Amino acid sequence: MASLNRVVVVGGTHGNEKTGVQLIHRLQNNPQELTRESFTAQTLLANEAAIARNCRYLEQDLNRCFTDELLSEAAANKEQALAQAINRQFGPKGPDSKTEWMIDLHTTTANMGITLVVQQHDPIALDMAHYVQQKLPEAVIFYENNTSAADPFLCSVARHGFLIEVGPIPQGLLRWEIFEQTRQALSHSLDFIERLDAGEIDLESPREAEVFQFVEKLHLPRNTAGEISGMVHPDLQDKDYHQLKPGEPLFILDTGQTIPFDGPEPVHVAFVNEAAYYDQAYGLSIMRKRSLSWKH
Amino acid sequence: MASLNRVVVVGGTHGNEKTGVQLIHRLQNNPQELTRESFTAQTLLANEAAIARNCRYLEQDLNRCFTDELLSEAAANKEQALAQAINRQFGPKGPDSKTEWMIDLHTTTANMGITLVVQQHDPIALDMAHYVQQKLPEAVIFYENNTSAADPFLCSVARHGFLIEVGPIPQGLLRWEIFEQTRQALSHSLDFIERLDAGEIDLESPREAEVFQFVEKLHLPRNTAGEISGMVHPDLQDKDYHQLKPGEPLFILDTGQTIPFDGPEPVHVAFVNEAAYYDQAYGLSIMRKRSLSWKH
Repeated sequence: MASLNRVVVVGGTHGNEKTGVQLIHRLQNNPQELTRESFTAQTLLANEAAIARNCRYLEQDLNRCFTDELLSEAAANKEQALAQAINRQFGPKGPDSKTEWMIDLHTTTANMGITLVVQQHDPIALDMAHYVQQKLPEAVIFYENNTSAADPFLCSVARHGFLIEVGPIPQGLLRWEIFEQTRQALSHSLDFIERLDAGEIDLESPREAEVFQFVEKLHLPRNTAGEISGMVHPDLQDKDYHQLKPGEPLFILDTGQTIPFDGPEPVHVAFVNEAAYYDQAYGLSIMRKRSLSWKH
Repeated sequence: MASLNRVVVVGGTHGNEKTGVQLIHRLQNNPQELTRESFTAQTLLANEAAIARNCRYLEQDLNRCFTDELLSEAAANKEQALAQAINRQFGPKGPDSKTEWMIDLHTTTANMGITLVVQQHDPIALDMAHYVQQKLPEAVIFYENNTSAADPFLCSVARHGFLIEVGPIPQGLLRWEIFEQTRQALSHSLDFIERLDAGEIDLESPREAEVFQFVEKLHLPRNTAGEISGMVHPDLQDKDYHQLKPGEPLFILDTGQTIPFDGPEPVHVAFVNEAAYYDQAYGLSIMRKRSLSWKH
């Protein structure tokens, strides 16, 4: 294996998601937790300026800067420049990346429990999610549709990227149960790599998992001036991964008027009331629940 | 009454506490909700630059800038300058203030429900809290010890200041139940002023209420480099206004080791895991529960 970096564990891609940052500190102080038979994972605190300021990012969401296009253009802001520096150090993104696995630790204000985000262009990451879900049956697989070129996530600089997203937790603080869930999901992910190396993961058999596939984000209610004029309906708040049927309450205006979901068919929901999405006035993500079968 | 402003309702003193900002928007669009027989309350969005950036403040917490000292010195930063401008417009702080009542709308990440913050130097505000508590029995009175001169809160520029603090809610988002609790507490506060004007509040009789008096803040665990190395213990998380006895779990290190409370006697707690206090590494406030009797 020519890899310089077998595995990199990342925290602080979003500077106000303290759980990953604190877990990186623990792992740096306890490197045996980063170690398996065949590797010791490295660590990266991705956006140190944003961590210092306790904000998601300075000029642009770093976790939207890793498309092929943004990595190859002249950097237009601090995060684009940082993405290119990370790509030089750990990439270059693509089949020749110096890094085999990158596991990025995130949190959400939404009630999403342990969510394992994988990309359809990366089926081995789906195997990792499947493995972690067998260890932590409450974990949910969140399936993204991007091509590698269009994948904007930091962990896409590695040959295989994996994003662990745990909630609900406010930005800017720590909660022990969220910290522990993140630590456990990461630990099982590292075990998967070890077992894959050892030939103990059967990649030949077809397998199947229930996944939630991202469809689109829905905007919060806005007035004619474009200002947010409502919020997630209390009947839908905290109902991540539940079904939402046409006619059921979706939003509530700040005056108390209910706005029902007007889609043509039932959907599932995620990122319900994620604080980071208010800058673009998004209230939730619509998902499609499906049973996915795959083999290598 | 020579007042230019009978009542001012304030949101956005902390720019990432969106509930108050959104409620101000609703009230501006529905001024009948600001109106009683004897007055129509004005509104103020206090820190518009911080609201626009969705951060608590730019350079210094605006709600710590209203001491006599900071209002009289040369302003050292943006918030001190803003405090002085607000003091010119709505004050000057003291018995000759142009504003009789100022009600400031806040939120907290802590599980504090509806908290009504009053200062011991302002007994009429305690009457307001007592009135609101009769209407909303779940509301808690949080009793601060400052003199008027040392009172750093924005609402201290009025002759009577009242702070409504509702949680738990993450920074940077809206939740309907928190919005509604805030709206109801404000509405009862405005009713109190109206009834006081109408002579319907008996100020002569002695009265009594249970209050939580602020004692001190406790620091989160920190390592020798001064970095946060632990968090609120899960047994104490969300237990605002509960009793904490010596020897009971207080914090947990990121390695999993429990740190018990080592105080000499039982206390009560509030602001348990408030995100805004991480910048100074505070984990919670220690309170003294007491039965307060007063008359005018």
